[in-house]
Amino acid sequence: MLSEDCGIFGVYNHSDSVSLTFLGLHSLQHRGQESLGVVYHNRNGFKQLKGMGLVNQFLKNIDLSRHRGRVAIGHTRYSTTGSSSSSNIQPLLINSYKGLIGVAHNGNLINAKMLKDNLRQKGAIFQTALDSEVILHLIAHSREKDLKKAIIASLKKIRGGFAFLFITEKGLCAARDPMGNRPLCLGKKGKSYIVSSEDSALKIVQAHSIREIQPGEIVFLEDDRITSAFFTTAIQKAHCIFELIYFARPDSTLFGLPVNQFREECGKQLARDSSLQADVVIAVPDSGNYAALGFSRESGIPFEMGLVRNHYIGRTFIQAKQLVRENDARLKLMPVENILKNKKVVIVDDSIVRGTTSRKIVKILREARVKEVHFRIASPPYLHPCYYGIDTPDENEFIAHRMDISGIRKFLQVDSLHYLSMNGLKQVLGERKNDFCFACFNGRYPQKVKIKLKKEILE
Amino acid sequence: MLSEDCGIFGVYNHSDSVSLTFLGLHSLQHRGQESLGVVYHNRNGFKQLKGMGLVNQFLKNIDLSRHRGRVAIGHTRYSTTGSSSSSNIQPLLINSYKGLIGVAHNGNLINAKMLKDNLRQKGAIFQTALDSEVILHLIAHSREKDLKKAIIASLKKIRGGFAFLFITEKGLCAARDPMGNRPLCLGKKGKSYIVSSEDSALKIVQAHSIREIQPGEIVFLEDDRITSAFFTTAIQKAHCIFELIYFARPDSTLFGLPVNQFREECGKQLARDSSLQADVVIAVPDSGNYAALGFSRESGIPFEMGLVRNHYIGRTFIQAKQLVRENDARLKLMPVENILKNKKVVIVDDSIVRGTTSRKIVKILREARVKEVHFRIASPPYLHPCYYGIDTPDENEFIAHRMDISGIRKFLQVDSLHYLSMNGLKQVLGERKNDFCFACFNGRYPQKVKIKLKKEILE
Amino acid sequence: MLSEDCGIFGVYNHSDSVSLTFLGLHSLQHRGQESLGVVYHNRNGFKQLKGMGLVNQFLKNIDLSRHRGRVAIGHTRYSTTGSSSSSNIQPLLINSYKGLIGVAHNGNLINAKMLKDNLRQKGAIFQTALDSEVILHLIAHSREKDLKKAIIASLKKIRGGFAFLFITEKGLCAARDPMGNRPLCLGKKGKSYIVSSEDSALKIVQAHSIREIQPGEIVFLEDDRITSAFFTTAIQKAHCIFELIYFARPDSTLFGLPVNQFREECGKQLARDSSLQADVVIAVPDSGNYAALGFSRESGIPFEMGLVRNHYIGRTFIQAKQLVRENDARLKLMPVENILKNKKVVIVDDSIVRGTTSRKIVKILREARVKEVHFRIASPPYLHPCYYGIDTPDENEFIAHRMDISGIRKFLQVDSLHYLSMNGLKQVLGERKNDFCFACFNGRYPQKVKIKLKKEILE
Amino acid sequence: MLSEDCGIFGVYNHSDSVSLTFLGLHSLQHRGQESLGVVYHNRNGFKQLKGMGLVNQFLKNIDLSRHRGRVAIGHTRYSTTGSSSSSNIQPLLINSYKGLIGVAHNGNLINAKMLKDNLRQKGAIFQTALDSEVILHLIAHSREKDLKKAIIASLKKIRGGFAFLFITEKGLCAARDPMGNRPLCLGKKGKSYIVSSEDSALKIVQAHSIREIQPGEIVFLEDDRITSAFFTTAIQKAHCIFELIYFARPDSTLFGLPVNQFREECGKQLARDSSLQADVVIAVPDSGNYAALGFSRESGIPFEMGLVRNHYIGRTFIQAKQLVRENDARLKLMPVENILKNKKVVIVDDSIVRGTTSRKIVKILREARVKEVHFRIASPPYLHPCYYGIDTPDENEFIAHRMDISGIRKFLQVDSLHYLSMNGLKQVLGERKNDFCFACFNGRYPQKVKIKLKKEILE
Repeated sequence: MLSEDCGIFGVYNHSDSVSLTFLGLHSLQHRGQESLGVVYHNRNGFKQLKGMGLVNQFLKNIDLSRHRGRVAIGHTRYSTTGSSSSSNIQPLLINSYKGLIGVAHNGNLINAKMLKDNLRQKGAIFQTALDSEVILHLIAHSREKDLKKAIIASLKKIRGGFAFLFITEKGLCAARDPMGNRPLCLGKKGKSYIVSSEDSALKIVQAHSIREIQPGEIVFLEDDRITSAFFTTAIQKAHCIFELIYFARPDSTLFGLPVNQFREECGKQLARDSSLQADVVIAVPDSGNYAALGFSRESGIPFEMGLVRNHYIGRTFIQAKQLVRENDARLKLMPVENILKNKKVVIVDDSIVRGTTSRKIVKILREARVKEVHFRIASPPYLHPCYYGIDTPDENEFIAHRMDISGIRKFLQVDSLHYLSMNGLKQVLGERKNDFCFACFNGRYPQKVKIKLKKEILE
Repeated sequence: MLSEDCGIFGVYNHSDSVSLTFLGLHSLQHRGQESLGVVYHNRNGFKQLKGMGLVNQFLKNIDLSRHRGRVAIGHTRYSTTGSSSSSNIQPLLINSYKGLIGVAHNGNLINAKMLKDNLRQKGAIFQTALDSEVILHLIAHSREKDLKKAIIASLKKIRGGFAFLFITEKGLCAARDPMGNRPLCLGKKGKSYIVSSEDSALKIVQAHSIREIQPGEIVFLEDDRITSAFFTTAIQKAHCIFELIYFARPDSTLFGLPVNQFREECGKQLARDSSLQADVVIAVPDSGNYAALGFSRESGIPFEMGLVRNHYIGRTFIQAKQLVRENDARLKLMPVENILKNKKVVIVDDSIVRGTTSRKIVKILREARVKEVHFRIASPPYLHPCYYGIDTPDENEFIAHRMDISGIRKFLQVDSLHYLSMNGLKQVLGERKNDFCFACFNGRYPQKVKIKLKKEILE
Repeated sequence: MLSEDCGIFGVYNHSDSVSLTFLGLHSLQHRGQESLGVVYHNRNGFKQLKGMGLVNQFLKNIDLSRHRGRVAIGHTRYSTTGSSSSSNIQPLLINSYKGLIGVAHNGNLINAKMLKDNLRQKGAIFQTALDSEVILHLIAHSREKDLKKAIIASLKKIRGGFAFLFITEKGLCAARDPMGNRPLCLGKKGKSYIVSSEDSALKIVQAHSIREIQPGEIVFLEDDRITSAFFTTAIQKAHCIFELIYFARPDSTLFGLPVNQFREECGKQLARDSSLQADVVIAVPDSGNYAALGFSRESGIPFEMGLVRNHYIGRTFIQAKQLVRENDARLKLMPVENILKNKKVVIVDDSIVRGTTSRKIVKILREARVKEVHFRIASPPYLHPCYYGIDTPDENEFIAHRMDISGIRKFLQVDSLHYLSMNGLKQVLGERKNDFCFACFNGRYPQKVKIKLKKEILE
Repeated sequence: MLSEDCGIFGVYNHSDSVSLTFLGLHSLQHRGQESLGVVYHNRNGFKQLKGMGLVNQFLKNIDLSRHRGRVAIGHTRYSTTGSSSSSNIQPLLINSYKGLIGVAHNGNLINAKMLKDNLRQKGAIFQTALDSEVILHLIAHSREKDLKKAIIASLKKIRGGFAFLFITEKGLCAARDPMGNRPLCLGKKGKSYIVSSEDSALKIVQAHSIREIQPGEIVFLEDDRITSAFFTTAIQKAHCIFELIYFARPDSTLFGLPVNQFREECGKQLARDSSLQADVVIAVPDSGNYAALGFSRESGIPFEMGLVRNHYIGRTFIQAKQLVRENDARLKLMPVENILKNKKVVIVDDSIVRGTTSRKIVKILREARVKEVHFRIASPPYLHPCYYGIDTPDENEFIAHRMDISGIRKFLQVDSLHYLSMNGLKQVLGERKNDFCFACFNGRYPQKVKIKLKKEILE
């Protein structure tokens, strides 16, 4: 229900690197559906393929057999209103004194504005609104003549959450922020290496996961081999909890945790926290699926598929949306009336950000004549904007920022409403609880973000 | 997993009839995704809107505000290889001595060839490959001067499964075959009437279901009111069992039975028929969802979501399919390894026709390192072609036609395989068991179809 | 400046018949730009390819190598407001008791309504608004069992201007109306025969012209040979004069007359009829080119290219048109100021129908600061609608119908205005003058068209 | 017949600046058809609109009413094989220490490589292959803090032919190279100023031409007024002669010379240089039109339109091209046989570069059975590549580089061949002859271009 994230994917040392990268992006499509790009190189130099829309659509006009190379990186981008310009499609490819470099980036730099100001004073010109351009300028301006050293020196200067893939004339390079905020994992397929935002995307290219890239680690894939270094000393880990809660595919394992199990456990914990008597538990499909299953198991209330998802809904049915303006969720979700009618229904979702869609779903349930609706959210109230990689709306749009639980309950028109508590969430994480960033729930950002800076970041 | 069916939808006496019809077709999209059409009329005459592809895509180029009328019918068409010509898009609209008539048809006439031969001898010219054109010629050639009588006389001449929607200068007319083979239901929205293949599609236009059109019934919507007649005497009902098993949306009630409950009961019956010890029950999403839930409930084996569906897969990812040719199901289904690994897994689907996709799914499970795979099919073996409305492949492509259970088990590479038995299926239906056509399972066609004719039908 | 006509093209006995037909249609594109279609057959049966727009655009999505057959016919259609429905694209392909038949038609039947009424009474259903459908019904209903005889019998029943191409299971058949109103010519390319609306289109397929199909002649191309017959006795010829004046390509020879020469002679005659002193003669490009050249030669006033045509203007620049709404001709025609400024300019065009574009052109000349504008029209005033094949607007839109010469002169804001006189036109034609239909100028239709019928035709 | 050039257009101080800029680009489309872009600004900041293809096509997907601002610049780009990447579309828009700057550029810098090397050493990163990016880096790196001064300082550093349009936060700025190699002119429309590559494009926006921007002049349009400066001292003028010969629209006045008159004079001079007896003079339309008219006037041989241009040929008719591979010019040019047959024909074109198209045209004439073909070229043999702004093929592709006149005559299969001599060309120019660059004819480049550098430029 939040705005989306980004996905990055790279292939080193495979004759089909471009095709495999597109397959990988297809598997990471849930992390970004607005645009995509791939940069690869072969003996004829570097080449970029970029476009708006989904991987499927883009490939209609591409003849993959004409794009061959042994190294490729790709990016699938989130959607933000107003800035969907083609000049912001990643990966970026540049020509500098240190050679040709392409970069794909997932995350957000909190000191980007300061770095940009410094770079501009040195004569740098910015052609995009991307943080990726900042790191490229840093590399180009670095006094380190060796490209590897220049990359490391540049990574030291940036703050925030990031996972980077660089394609250079020599090979591929992957780096992850020192807090491990953004996910990045390493896979292998025969003699080839794959780097991906999520390990689940490795399956489609028949690679297996080796391990996550470590926080603060940089991995170089050159000369047919892999080398690794740490560009910074260890600091407190701050994995993004929202990756586990919402973004990641359920078949991924992130930060060492299987996503589906985590979500199921959250659902169980939620049932323990907010016991009630009801007839059925249903999920908001597909985001609430595993949490609802967990809730059902813990509470003993039977799990039912009371809302069915329409697979034929795309982005463009604008006119139909206007016709059902009072409730366009109807186009996407279909209530199964014999499951719902005259029932006390528990409905489980992963999170609520703005609350508008949740309200529409409740309306659908009411129209299917449920007796009672009890909304259960498998995460704490979403209260604070993210500066580390998730594109969140303005905090004034967060429903939990605008009203208290009672207000939200009335807004959603539900009989009861419970969020998973911070304690409950931490209990699910157990001893791993200190390795996470919960800033969106409790406002404690892992690095100091001055109020003034906040606004600048979102300029 | 079968080829698809058709959906029809009509609106009488609503100022937004065209828009509502498109919404209805969108809700019936699961019944046909190849092409669609709408015919409506207003004071300026009849108008048709037709195109290939999905409702969503088609509406991108249509300005609905320019298409206004109080009566409209629509059709969404199944896909058959080789004949996807634009001249075969329904509804058909013709001009005859009896006026302008548009028709949308779901079903298949078993005496179409004979009727066509007769009509051609009388000078009729055929411009499409559609059965709908046959009924229009019959009406035009009918000696009955009154259009209503001509329609009734023509309906008497045809044999097979059918649901028809006619739009005439006076209004709308809906008819259903005497066996009730094809579904058709009647809804109401204020002073407007809606006719739809499934009642679930009424919800999107905020109409409520009144009742099914009866077998052999014809309903006329003219002069702001509804009249009904039976064009034939009562014969044995023969509802299409496959509508319940596969085609219909789970939130529909068809032939008096709620689809999701029927499927859940089939899953329970299957569990009774084929008891086993296992760790988890999973569904082939979404076709096996409710049967799997039923199987889990009856057997006590926990239900898990072990396969996740990728929502970004469209029809066009041809090049990617080629890259994963050995298993393109991977693009669509993602295994959740921690649910599957080292487990005895029961996987439930609604039916198996060719078996090729099922085999690919088993392969995906094996790669996720399950210990055992037990395939359970919530319907009997599919053995005979349908001549009444479902576009089936040649019977030589039916896996159950080509091999016995043991052979299929080996082909799918599963540890055990069980189909729901005919007895089991009938037990689920209870006293309603005699109202159904089971020809695809037992070869007993409700009307005599001579072997010779069979081939001609499929010419 | 008129609405457009249609072009038809057929190939018999060539392995590349489909490709050649598309090339032919491309060469006849000036006769119709709204839609196009090709029907061909090979061992697998008949196949149709149809679409909206230009040949170039259509071929983007067609793989010609997959469409092979030895016989093909094609049609490129004129544009008429309001009826641009995909169901009206020619050729039509039908299945009848007499086999599969495709037909492409250029022209208009004046007794279509009566024939349709008769046919509908016999049970015929009409699926298009095309006259081509009438002839197909006549053939199907004919008592003649032999297809050839049935075609001939049907041709006898129709009245109006027509050129038909039929594709049958045996080959190709071409027929032309008894007056020779519509053009149709026969070409040869090795052992293959080509039939085309204009002989100039033969060049692109490297065929040479043999002769015109004669008025009232029907040609059968079957069994690798050509046979010919006359389906009616000789009647007074009535070739369409407007084909020579406007429609045909200047490099065609039509009705025995080279088009460019005819137009140049009209220009010369016009100069004789309306002598004046002026500085330059310019054409409205390209329609007035040859007449302007003729005018210059006869008058001795130098020919200049004072208006340059912009080749990048397409149909879609709607927003730009709105920006230059006061004069959208500016997007298409660019004045060369040093040729025009302070000059007495004679501007020559082939004809004026509505007068709106001519007025815009004069405005462009005025803005280029000409001293005087003298408009010369190389044909008589256009006064009467055509019922034989040209899609004309309602006669109330003809400027010459609405005002006298003096009124038109004021409307166009020109210093003088002269049309070629009927006498002048006949002088150009010399002894051929009796072979033509001048109905659009003098209202004398070659066949009696009752006033009442007129309206019905245009229904 | 050469590769194409670029067109730039800017509007200052008009509420419809974006729409006017698109109209201007439409009028400059002959200078570049591969891609286009517009950058404008309003209170909400800078905005860019970019796309591949023609203005007409691009505008289909743009709602101009949503793009409002008082200042805009636009660019339409030439086509070069292999580098048609979307990242190379102009104008470029960047963010630097000196603010947001957009730039559109026509021309070529001969010291770009050296400047790029220097800039890269200072840390600059290049994201495109465009010279425009060089000037932006120079501006950003300039020590001058004032943007105007920085632009002037940067212009001093570059060598070559250029016309620049900058859009800045304060307004618009236009600059032209000191030799006046590339054209650029200034127009006025009420209180608004327009800058355009050609004055003919001013007409479409109803502006009038004031004057050309002078060689070495920079014009600032800020604070509702115009100021001008010279960024360099006067040097020898070197206007591009090929603009007059081929690129510019005939209705433009360039370097003080009306283009159509210049071309007509070249044709006359050519007739004087190469007298012959012949029956007709025809042009290669439209490039040879005015020269052919001049040739006819001087020689007394009548001018005829013996080749007609097909207006329906687009870029995409690839399959048709393959069908007529031996002569695809046939798709574009149609011979009028009665003008050509058995005639001694003089055919006039503006220039010959590769000679392949000319050869095809001669073949078309031969097939129309001319008696003799005499080819006349209204410019001297094209021998040397251009480094100042025209995208020429490798000099080894120039036919005049590969063979002598006799060889070309044989290659073209013509009876005689004459080029306009250098002396003849200079005679046409009269006292202006020293103001032009004739390097493509005589190899005398206005600025020293080292052989080594040549290759680097074309890297």
